[in-house]
Amino acid sequence: MMNREDQIMQQKNVKVIRGLYVGRFQPYHLGHQEVIKKISKEVDEIIIVIGSAEESHTIKDPFTAGERVVMICNSLGDLRGKCYVIPLRNINRFAVWVAHLLSMVPKFDIVYSNNHLVTQLFEESGFEVRKSPMFDRTVMSGTRIRQMMKSGENWSHLVPREVLLEIEKVRGVERLKKIMENDI
Amino acid sequence: MMNREDQIMQQKNVKVIRGLYVGRFQPYHLGHQEVIKKISKEVDEIIIVIGSAEESHTIKDPFTAGERVVMICNSLGDLRGKCYVIPLRNINRFAVWVAHLLSMVPKFDIVYSNNHLVTQLFEESGFEVRKSPMFDRTVMSGTRIRQMMKSGENWSHLVPREVLLEIEKVRGVERLKKIMENDI
Amino acid sequence: MMNREDQIMQQKNVKVIRGLYVGRFQPYHLGHQEVIKKISKEVDEIIIVIGSAEESHTIKDPFTAGERVVMICNSLGDLRGKCYVIPLRNINRFAVWVAHLLSMVPKFDIVYSNNHLVTQLFEESGFEVRKSPMFDRTVMSGTRIRQMMKSGENWSHLVPREVLLEIEKVRGVERLKKIMENDI
Amino acid sequence: MMNREDQIMQQKNVKVIRGLYVGRFQPYHLGHQEVIKKISKEVDEIIIVIGSAEESHTIKDPFTAGERVVMICNSLGDLRGKCYVIPLRNINRFAVWVAHLLSMVPKFDIVYSNNHLVTQLFEESGFEVRKSPMFDRTVMSGTRIRQMMKSGENWSHLVPREVLLEIEKVRGVERLKKIMENDI
Amino acid sequence: MMNREDQIMQQKNVKVIRGLYVGRFQPYHLGHQEVIKKISKEVDEIIIVIGSAEESHTIKDPFTAGERVVMICNSLGDLRGKCYVIPLRNINRFAVWVAHLLSMVPKFDIVYSNNHLVTQLFEESGFEVRKSPMFDRTVMSGTRIRQMMKSGENWSHLVPREVLLEIEKVRGVERLKKIMENDI
Amino acid sequence: MMNREDQIMQQKNVKVIRGLYVGRFQPYHLGHQEVIKKISKEVDEIIIVIGSAEESHTIKDPFTAGERVVMICNSLGDLRGKCYVIPLRNINRFAVWVAHLLSMVPKFDIVYSNNHLVTQLFEESGFEVRKSPMFDRTVMSGTRIRQMMKSGENWSHLVPREVLLEIEKVRGVERLKKIMENDI
Repeated sequence: MMNREDQIMQQKNVKVIRGLYVGRFQPYHLGHQEVIKKISKEVDEIIIVIGSAEESHTIKDPFTAGERVVMICNSLGDLRGKCYVIPLRNINRFAVWVAHLLSMVPKFDIVYSNNHLVTQLFEESGFEVRKSPMFDRTVMSGTRIRQMMKSGENWSHLVPREVLLEIEKVRGVERLKKIMENDI
Repeated sequence: MMNREDQIMQQKNVKVIRGLYVGRFQPYHLGHQEVIKKISKEVDEIIIVIGSAEESHTIKDPFTAGERVVMICNSLGDLRGKCYVIPLRNINRFAVWVAHLLSMVPKFDIVYSNNHLVTQLFEESGFEVRKSPMFDRTVMSGTRIRQMMKSGENWSHLVPREVLLEIEKVRGVERLKKIMENDI
Repeated sequence: MMNREDQIMQQKNVKVIRGLYVGRFQPYHLGHQEVIKKISKEVDEIIIVIGSAEESHTIKDPFTAGERVVMICNSLGDLRGKCYVIPLRNINRFAVWVAHLLSMVPKFDIVYSNNHLVTQLFEESGFEVRKSPMFDRTVMSGTRIRQMMKSGENWSHLVPREVLLEIEKVRGVERLKKIMENDI
Repeated sequence: MMNREDQIMQQKNVKVIRGLYVGRFQPYHLGHQEVIKKISKEVDEIIIVIGSAEESHTIKDPFTAGERVVMICNSLGDLRGKCYVIPLRNINRFAVWVAHLLSMVPKFDIVYSNNHLVTQLFEESGFEVRKSPMFDRTVMSGTRIRQMMKSGENWSHLVPREVLLEIEKVRGVERLKKIMENDI
Repeated sequence: MMNREDQIMQQKNVKVIRGLYVGRFQPYHLGHQEVIKKISKEVDEIIIVIGSAEESHTIKDPFTAGERVVMICNSLGDLRGKCYVIPLRNINRFAVWVAHLLSMVPKFDIVYSNNHLVTQLFEESGFEVRKSPMFDRTVMSGTRIRQMMKSGENWSHLVPREVLLEIEKVRGVERLKKIMENDI
Repeated sequence: MMNREDQIMQQKNVKVIRGLYVGRFQPYHLGHQEVIKKISKEVDEIIIVIGSAEESHTIKDPFTAGERVVMICNSLGDLRGKCYVIPLRNINRFAVWVAHLLSMVPKFDIVYSNNHLVTQLFEESGFEVRKSPMFDRTVMSGTRIRQMMKSGENWSHLVPREVLLEIEKVRGVERLKKIMENDI
């Protein structure tokens, strides 16, 4: 039987590969879910960073970080055990953004992103950036779903059931409609 | 067979009870672990808030939020699926602190705390606060463990194995010793 | 004759009803004045919050908080004794905005607002929100007055005399014109 | 009869002399009240700045700015009409502090202060600083009153009746005691 | 021979005239260089303030403050010894901006600026503001150079050689192109 | 004769070695000067970072960044042409501090420091840190000089003549004495 020291030594040699995936998730939808499923086949653990965490109650960012944490965690199912879901506030100093993120999340090996700025910043810091797996953005996009919420179209088939549930609980559609009225 | 609408309706009636537990976890130790195990018997889900998230590399707060996320998540074992582990930065305006926290975490029902200020702030906001389950603070305390790290005493039996592993990975004891030298 | 303790007890039973009215007041005009007069008939005391207090010297917010305090206080006349005039800086985190405001002003009972976001935020926090009394916004509006200042039209009949006086004292029209030149 | 233009011209020639008085007012007590009464004999209007406005729920600063606004405004009696009571948040950059204050309050002519740093900062900016009228600080001081609140001594004769009332309304003594327990 | 005290006395009587010149320098180009040369004939020393110092990696502000420091210092040649090159972060409170700047740079006598807001702010603070010497802005402008970088036109003749060198070293054109893609 | 492209190519191959030296310089004294002279023999250019740039008017940090810029630049003599003197504000997040500094200064190769925290932070980021050249800290130290200023002892032989001059110009000793009175 291995003693404790040996177990630790052994574990230190087992390298866990972690991928990073950053989004605003306003709201979390089936496109995001698909991406995470695909990433999960390439890495051992996924760090899901909820960006713009301190934003809420705006047309672009209606949901709080807490609400988005619930949406994501409850939708992950079996994947939850291998995901870290971490809200991250914006700091509008891009030269410091990577260091800011690094201090808030577990160490990772691969960044998944299609955003050019995110890609640029991580590459300048020496990270490997892979293109995120693609989904059909003309159908699944936060912007489109928020627009459908406003106009009264049916958007419920575009999000996991648990997201629908959370949005109903917090009366999210009513909130969004109210906020959008200010714009008129 | 239930259709989707019905399922959602049903779920809305199932109330999940959530408890909140706030700490700095510098580092996460067996006392914290014990508390979380006890709380897990009273509630369905636990929100573990890592306070002072933006602090690190000080004598009082040597570890980054990311390192503390790893310590906690990896130590939770079977409980991980029912826990949310969320780093929260300090805002030194106590009148706003509860609202700050509320926006960053899932809704919760019960606060577990022995801290008088935390208790006062949540009670002024109308929350139920229960005393945290107790453990022997003369043995298990972050302050004591950090002191032992510095003086070279053995502290490894006071933390979960996964915490020991993470601290070794980031060379945490060396970091703490170095920082403490500045104080002399 | 009542002793001191009794007087206090008695006063504690006299509930003062306070209304809250939030604006940017760039500048304070007769429309605002009218609203405050109407509110003053429904409540005992009015809290007038000067929003975006740290803004000044911009096209949208030319006047400092201090200048706006003078405009309002000097125009209130007999109402001044039942008004609190309080500058409040913006914090662009709407989930925390109500708590921020609450900590800076006396407790209040009714919010007067026609702004949808303000209404939404206070209602989510459990406050009663009433529509502000209306005035003719096509005639009286800060935006229009600032536009008239720039183009040289006569706007002085749209503001209380004390506001005119303060704007002359700080040479506000010259300031606004100068700032607007940058935009060309 | 004077027309409007003439009235304004006339008013512009009437110079209102304003004094500035800065304090934390934790709580507002009879010493402060005495100072303000004396200042009111030297100037036409007084600007009372509530410093450390965003502080509350600490041993040094237990009361919110809103609570302090109530304490002061309600105690001023006949003087209220010639006072501006303005909460001001701390910015811990002394080289900018005077400009920060200037932008938040009406223009003033004389600063009343016994604080050496405040005096230094205003004098470097070219202001006239007068010593505040004195009161017996061994009897009347915020620090002493907070200490008496904690130890259960009678402090109520040291504050205006309206302050006592506000502290009872917000259960201020209980709050302070609770916060102080953390320190033990 | 003069002793030390005398030397100091003498130096105190020699008044050094300093001019202030503020820009974002994204990038530093020959128009800026020309201005600085002309100013150098009117004053003894020039303070060159790099505004928006914490901005970088955006379309409007692609270069870091550090990169801009190198561009300027290396291009100054013989003038370097009489220039102070100082990065200054934005604080979006114009009422405090002059005080913020004053605390970060040596004392100066004349402000050179063609920006209306800058002129307004310094004049309200009692400074002498002179129009900057002019250059042909339709040819030389940061905006135009950044646009040329993107479109692949030749811009290298518009900047000092040392600027070209620094931009190549940090692969600035590639950075800018990448960032601009996000906008499409 | 080389054409422009060739010159640039050539320069790109000439590697300039830069050293970094961080201090608060309250005030800049002959110990600092000695260190910089020694470093100047090991590297081509020196980046002198003025830490805690936004601090001033305190016992620990009496002088503004602008005043410290003057002290240093004027004392450097022949070395000025190979030095960059850059004020840097504190951000109290050590995990991000190195990235913050990197974005504000030219790229550098070697860090000179005897501070354990600074050393730790740069080493975690992969930088080479060398011990600063030593001087006699029992004689030359900012703390000691400030103490001497207060007590009226002679300190003028401990600083370069230009520092003495600047401190006299801003009446620094009077400022420090005034601030220190608050502490009594």
